[in-house]
Amino acid sequence: MLKIKSVELIKAKGGKVTREPGPAKSGSTIIASVEDPDGYTFELLERGLSPEPLCQVMLRVGDLDRAINFYKKAFGMELLRKRDYPEYKYTYALMGYGPEDKNPVLELTYNYGITDYDKGNGYAQIAIGTDDVYKSAEAIKLYGGKIVLEPGPLPGINTKITACLDPDGWKSVFVDNVDFMKELE
Amino acid sequence: MLKIKSVELIKAKGGKVTREPGPAKSGSTIIASVEDPDGYTFELLERGLSPEPLCQVMLRVGDLDRAINFYKKAFGMELLRKRDYPEYKYTYALMGYGPEDKNPVLELTYNYGITDYDKGNGYAQIAIGTDDVYKSAEAIKLYGGKIVLEPGPLPGINTKITACLDPDGWKSVFVDNVDFMKELE
Repeated sequence: MLKIKSVELIKAKGGKVTREPGPAKSGSTIIASVEDPDGYTFELLERGLSPEPLCQVMLRVGDLDRAINFYKKAFGMELLRKRDYPEYKYTYALMGYGPEDKNPVLELTYNYGITDYDKGNGYAQIAIGTDDVYKSAEAIKLYGGKIVLEPGPLPGINTKITACLDPDGWKSVFVDNVDFMKELE
Repeated sequence: MLKIKSVELIKAKGGKVTREPGPAKSGSTIIASVEDPDGYTFELLERGLSPEPLCQVMLRVGDLDRAINFYKKAFGMELLRKRDYPEYKYTYALMGYGPEDKNPVLELTYNYGITDYDKGNGYAQIAIGTDDVYKSAEAIKLYGGKIVLEPGPLPGINTKITACLDPDGWKSVFVDNVDFMKELE
């Protein structure tokens, strides 16, 4: 009951609870309202455990084993699943940082015989959190990726990032975990 | 110390601990090995709290308010952040099912004056878990999306899905949460 703890803290700090924690209309959410000492009202929502809805991104690749190897070695992802459907002439691989019931995954699809795709100019990239953008950039170069933005702090906000293309030309941006958390503060 | 609790439970149930919980080589992981009463060996890993690395997907859109409204109303996402950079002539919106330090987010970018993008044929889609694909499809139609695969069970595996295009033509697939979990069993 995290939000109830928050409500207690707010009370202790001189805030006024205008709605005690209780279930919201939707059922699975606990809701409370508080007023801070300056008179601003906040609504606190505690959600029940539910799987993350945004669970997958799918990209088509021209060489599945090359892509799997790259996302494993350069990105540190695990190969969670690989399935071949000869009758439909495609193979897919699910890659991610943990099991697909808990972590969002990257689905890479290979369609038999198609080695190249038109990437257009609308899709931009995925972003990946990292503890060390410099090491990430090294791994990317080592395993067949291309750095398109050298690792380092962004002017102005100082968040360290690096950007790369995978062997198919799909772009990713790596963002320093600590810098990213600071940005959110 | 979830896994240590697991180890205690396993001991209590007659399992044999072949490696007591301790740090793995990587440092942030706690590892233990146990043997169940049938002689099978299991490795238990407890990972430290770390943010999900795969944290963002970025798409460019031709009308940001239209896109924000659609992902809010039809997909049930929250607008987490919206920032305008007049000096760089773009605005972005972060949309997601929870705060960006805990949930993967969709970054929608609008570049001043560009209302249409070439989507190519390489980027496929994002996938979204839902409790009800039929209701998702209704909401999508109601708020300006186009259903490209009517909601219902997929032949063979019976997982209920529906697929749609957003007002910009970006594809998403909705997958029934319960069916998806069954598929993984």
